[in-house]
Amino acid sequence: MTEKTALTPATHTTPPAKFSHGVRKGNLLQVAGQVGFLPAVEGQAPTPAGPTLREQTLQTLANVKAILEEGGASWDDAVMIRVYLTDVAHFAELNEIYDAYFEQQGLTQAPAARTTVYVGLPPGLLIEIDALAVLS
Amino acid sequence: MTEKTALTPATHTTPPAKFSHGVRKGNLLQVAGQVGFLPAVEGQAPTPAGPTLREQTLQTLANVKAILEEGGASWDDAVMIRVYLTDVAHFAELNEIYDAYFEQQGLTQAPAARTTVYVGLPPGLLIEIDALAVLS
Amino acid sequence: MTEKTALTPATHTTPPAKFSHGVRKGNLLQVAGQVGFLPAVEGQAPTPAGPTLREQTLQTLANVKAILEEGGASWDDAVMIRVYLTDVAHFAELNEIYDAYFEQQGLTQAPAARTTVYVGLPPGLLIEIDALAVLS
Repeated sequence: MTEKTALTPATHTTPPAKFSHGVRKGNLLQVAGQVGFLPAVEGQAPTPAGPTLREQTLQTLANVKAILEEGGASWDDAVMIRVYLTDVAHFAELNEIYDAYFEQQGLTQAPAARTTVYVGLPPGLLIEIDALAVLS
Repeated sequence: MTEKTALTPATHTTPPAKFSHGVRKGNLLQVAGQVGFLPAVEGQAPTPAGPTLREQTLQTLANVKAILEEGGASWDDAVMIRVYLTDVAHFAELNEIYDAYFEQQGLTQAPAARTTVYVGLPPGLLIEIDALAVLS
Repeated sequence: MTEKTALTPATHTTPPAKFSHGVRKGNLLQVAGQVGFLPAVEGQAPTPAGPTLREQTLQTLANVKAILEEGGASWDDAVMIRVYLTDVAHFAELNEIYDAYFEQQGLTQAPAARTTVYVGLPPGLLIEIDALAVLS
């Protein structure tokens, strides 16, 4: 039997429901939808990194990365990144932030595929991202 | 060659288009987007379990589970559950229902990752759920 | 180590950000969100196939198929197709177009699972589709 392991980085709050921030089973790693919450502080409600798309996107990407790494993976293992924005007008800025971020990550393999759609999110949140990775 | 098998529980209506309610190929099982339709009755149009979020969520989860089981899997094999709600105001109630449901399922492994976003759905439907499972 | 390969059909424009139109890693192939852009013409901005749902859907499906084929896969390998529409009123017509398209593709295995939700998309775009395939 292949075990399914929950991935819970030290920076993360307890999930608000019975789900895992990420799970790994065999060579597949699934990251749950992440938002731009700052590292958890005990006794405090989750707080977004800031009101801007830039702040929230960079924190969200850091949160996804923490889960990938908790499972022994890196951005190079990601095959799909799903980006949920709340406003079509944010697309160009998202792409700028996204490109600059991944330039800095020093990918050695093809970047992941991506789907970007525009949905509703809880008040104050501008972006949510999840990811699927296949480990080597 | 690995075969791809359609998963069609006895409780399910014929899909309204050329897709499968679920498919299994190798050790991967993908459940199509399920809504809260009651078990199919021949000659009748699909009918949601009820107007409330609770009724629809429990029926939707039952529909996802039926497909997992049809493919020889269980909730313990699910690595990702995607929840589509129509109203941000439903998040807290969804989490209560979701938690209580999975408590009852007696999971023996880490719960699946989850992404929840808010989208449009056909009139009368409050929730849609799909899932990805990796069999042991 | 299993390599991750970017899939870039000749018909496709350069992605507007640091992502791949599709990637293959091991036996998994992920197609990024495709829209109804006509084959790329150098020096011209991407242009949708037409204003109607039919034109855009058929072009979008052709774009997904091109990426599957670039990775050595076909529709028969697809396990999940995610359809993003902008208008609930398009569901019945989408299903007609989708069914007729897949009838013509001569599938020899079970059709893929599918989730259809209603989201926002950039102005002029009525549909976006992504897909996950498992190669035999």
